[in-house]
Amino acid sequence: MNVLWVFAHPEPRSLNGALRDQGTATLARLGHRVRQSDLYAMGWNPVAGPADVAHDPREPLRLGPATDRARAAGALAPDIRAEHDKLAWADALVLQFPLWWHGMPAILKGWFDRVFVQGYAFGVHDDQGRPRRYGDGGLAGRRALVVTTAGARGTGLGPRGLHGDAEDVLFPVLHGTLFYAGMDVLPPLVVTGADRAGPAERARAAARLDDRLTALPTADPIGYRPERGGGYDEDLVLRPHLAPGRTDLAVHRT
Amino acid sequence: MNVLWVFAHPEPRSLNGALRDQGTATLARLGHRVRQSDLYAMGWNPVAGPADVAHDPREPLRLGPATDRARAAGALAPDIRAEHDKLAWADALVLQFPLWWHGMPAILKGWFDRVFVQGYAFGVHDDQGRPRRYGDGGLAGRRALVVTTAGARGTGLGPRGLHGDAEDVLFPVLHGTLFYAGMDVLPPLVVTGADRAGPAERARAAARLDDRLTALPTADPIGYRPERGGGYDEDLVLRPHLAPGRTDLAVHRT
Repeated sequence: MNVLWVFAHPEPRSLNGALRDQGTATLARLGHRVRQSDLYAMGWNPVAGPADVAHDPREPLRLGPATDRARAAGALAPDIRAEHDKLAWADALVLQFPLWWHGMPAILKGWFDRVFVQGYAFGVHDDQGRPRRYGDGGLAGRRALVVTTAGARGTGLGPRGLHGDAEDVLFPVLHGTLFYAGMDVLPPLVVTGADRAGPAERARAAARLDDRLTALPTADPIGYRPERGGGYDEDLVLRPHLAPGRTDLAVHRT
Repeated sequence: MNVLWVFAHPEPRSLNGALRDQGTATLARLGHRVRQSDLYAMGWNPVAGPADVAHDPREPLRLGPATDRARAAGALAPDIRAEHDKLAWADALVLQFPLWWHGMPAILKGWFDRVFVQGYAFGVHDDQGRPRRYGDGGLAGRRALVVTTAGARGTGLGPRGLHGDAEDVLFPVLHGTLFYAGMDVLPPLVVTGADRAGPAERARAAARLDDRLTALPTADPIGYRPERGGGYDEDLVLRPHLAPGRTDLAVHRT
């Protein structure tokens, strides 16, 4: 497989840096090709705005349509186009980041804000004008694996944990971004207790990462419900006979 | 009240810009004092990294402890200190942003990443060395209101909606950031269908915002469970007799 590894940590001499080095080496050893977007090393600009397109400042900026037009004209900012080239090449995406304030570091959030533009990752339609999203879309056919580290202990990010269950906390990226754009989203690898990890914990995290990367081509994705599978009604609400009486985020898994 | 309005939209000539102008005027008319952090206008840098502290590049950067030391020494980057000054002044915080990929725009995520440093908004302890967080903490005593716009229709962001219920999708900021840091978090104002809003929808959104701002000093916050209320055990897991059998994020509300 062709694997794009997106890395968002400011310090290569860190647990995250070590896991990235090992993970990319493991993929190469398994026969995959790897390219990286090391966002801190690249000095990635995460701020979506008028500079992404050739915007006439006399007109109010509507970023969605403006990026869609620029994309169609091949006129998006060169750093965005470079990421599109990598994504066109990739069969799988690994997103690695420390969990900051229960989400992605801004530099990675802004990779999605700027790269996942209208007409590319959202606002994509089929021949009948219906939106292609949630299980289908501009990035369909690709696999995605989130690898994140958290200072919190594992139970606090587990079911009924104080911080919220990790898969619910990550729902905006797992479901609302990666699955939205059509990717097959694997269960995330969440390395907890990262601030206090000694050699044994680091070795265990490394082994878990290797296991996940070995299974990258074959592991079952999270069973999120596709929008087109008949589960949702015309108001985009899950039909009552499915997961009756429940309102939690897990109803969006089959 | 002293209200800090944090605004994260690239275009002042937008629905968001109009709501910001009106909201800040309404607060002034009600007798409150208002300061703004208009992140795009300020050219806010959202990328947390070594430049936030006086970091010796020969040493691996550990951002948490490094920012904690710099904070204690008054040596954080000047733009971070300016935001701390505004927060010290503020009784309430309004965070206004368009919902991009089911979260904050990167420029706002990076406001939290850089401003909510260790020893200030997390890693704060009481006299007995216990963490002050989730209902107590460095920003205790302040109210927080999230105001966000989404292109999606309302039902899709409601209970069992395709995109996930808005309060669950916003859990990382509402619970995992604002409540974590000790604030009283009001129910968010979510303006849906924003991409297609005509004059009537815009007027309705403006009226809803005015209602929320009028109630800013008195509205009941979301009833998130405080960490110290006895609900969580020593593993930080919600005790079984509370919300028995459930694992959804709503168990973290009383």
